[in-house]
Amino acid sequence: MESFVTRKQKIVKYHNDHFEELDDEVAVEFPLTIVVDGQEFATMVCTPTHLEELVIGFLASEGLIRSSEEIKAISVDEHRGFAYVELVTKQSIQKEFYARRFIGSCCGKSRQFYFYNDMKTAKTVVHRTNVRVDQCFRLMRLLQERSTDFQATGGIHNAALCTPNELVIVRSDIGRHNALDKIYGYCLQHDLQLSDKLIAFSGRVSSEVLLKVSKMGIGIILSKSAPTTLALELANDLGITVVGFIRGQTFNVYTHVDQITE
Amino acid sequence: MESFVTRKQKIVKYHNDHFEELDDEVAVEFPLTIVVDGQEFATMVCTPTHLEELVIGFLASEGLIRSSEEIKAISVDEHRGFAYVELVTKQSIQKEFYARRFIGSCCGKSRQFYFYNDMKTAKTVVHRTNVRVDQCFRLMRLLQERSTDFQATGGIHNAALCTPNELVIVRSDIGRHNALDKIYGYCLQHDLQLSDKLIAFSGRVSSEVLLKVSKMGIGIILSKSAPTTLALELANDLGITVVGFIRGQTFNVYTHVDQITE
Repeated sequence: MESFVTRKQKIVKYHNDHFEELDDEVAVEFPLTIVVDGQEFATMVCTPTHLEELVIGFLASEGLIRSSEEIKAISVDEHRGFAYVELVTKQSIQKEFYARRFIGSCCGKSRQFYFYNDMKTAKTVVHRTNVRVDQCFRLMRLLQERSTDFQATGGIHNAALCTPNELVIVRSDIGRHNALDKIYGYCLQHDLQLSDKLIAFSGRVSSEVLLKVSKMGIGIILSKSAPTTLALELANDLGITVVGFIRGQTFNVYTHVDQITE
Repeated sequence: MESFVTRKQKIVKYHNDHFEELDDEVAVEFPLTIVVDGQEFATMVCTPTHLEELVIGFLASEGLIRSSEEIKAISVDEHRGFAYVELVTKQSIQKEFYARRFIGSCCGKSRQFYFYNDMKTAKTVVHRTNVRVDQCFRLMRLLQERSTDFQATGGIHNAALCTPNELVIVRSDIGRHNALDKIYGYCLQHDLQLSDKLIAFSGRVSSEVLLKVSKMGIGIILSKSAPTTLALELANDLGITVVGFIRGQTFNVYTHVDQITE
């Protein structure tokens, strides 16, 4: 059973002009197949921690559920890498349909791009919190301090659900979006109020990451890394503040700068 | 029409204790839908360069084609983000089937994981080249020197097809696997001999990356970043040498160290 974030592995290191055999830590990559009402729905690779949260968050992201009460039963077979979900209301899952692309002009002038599940679940964030400059730096520093596995293996992304003052929960995964799905799943399980929260994130802000934040109804994402153009178009339309490249005493605000105060 | 790697964007930078509006470069993220024989096959987000290569490489990776001669016609609508492919031999594409997970014990002792397309296309690499320690450092340095867009935006991955002595082609993308698919597409278009080549890569070596290298029939991957456990299991079985964390005068060899000479 693989149930750890990293695994010890024999490697051959070249350093000081010679080869040496030694032990190193490598990030575990774990395939997980989600079966919904007896039907194979998706297979992902992930870090095998908080798998129930991951499954719940993923199903909510995909628009299959809106709350954790819509799940009748969930069990994870960590040995074989399967998660079995039974929904309260059975629905026929047309996977074809879920992967279909939609280009709409629903939210304004920009050239939009959504999958079917995004159309159903992405929402414009109306209630947002404010965050001060010093809080942005502090939250990112706290996230970095918690990122011990990343330092050990160089392969893990971290996401935290935060208030302006503190980290509420931190989740890690080799997949950027999985870290967010774990947080989403936790929030649904615990019925957390999200409109006054924000996300601190170690990875790049792509359209997929941005859409996940919007689905959670969170209005601010702080990141150490860069955003993409498509993420910024969506952020503009969906009312989300994107702060990137938070490093040292510097950061960039890409959208909705009014939520950041001095 | 978006056809560049980066795009200028107004941002608000916080530095030297104040906010300032200025121009910055952001990595373009472009949605591309591939239509095969009139049927929507897949939608990906990518950097909109070398799109024809990307499509050809992706279809080969997915096992739909084996050579570029199997494509009768290909056209890319860069405005709407669609690629239309006509195959010489029409086949009904059962997408359900392509996303199905297979766990086999086909190649030995490790707990294997493949999708259907991987089963068809991943192959054990038999003919491999050797590479010297100093060549590893040099190739990674050359790749880094070519990575100007990454330096500008912080969001682009780079991959190079190499001989032990030089970079043959370099491709960039916001998606790690897209950069490799572009290289694969180029190789198929130009009918390149690959068993004496290697890949230099800026990103993390995940199972997906490793499988793409195996599909190309390439026996060595050099990376600046970390591998995952699943990638290393596959590399062990498929005969691929994984060298990671190439930085300064240090690197780690994770598998098949015999291909690296002093």
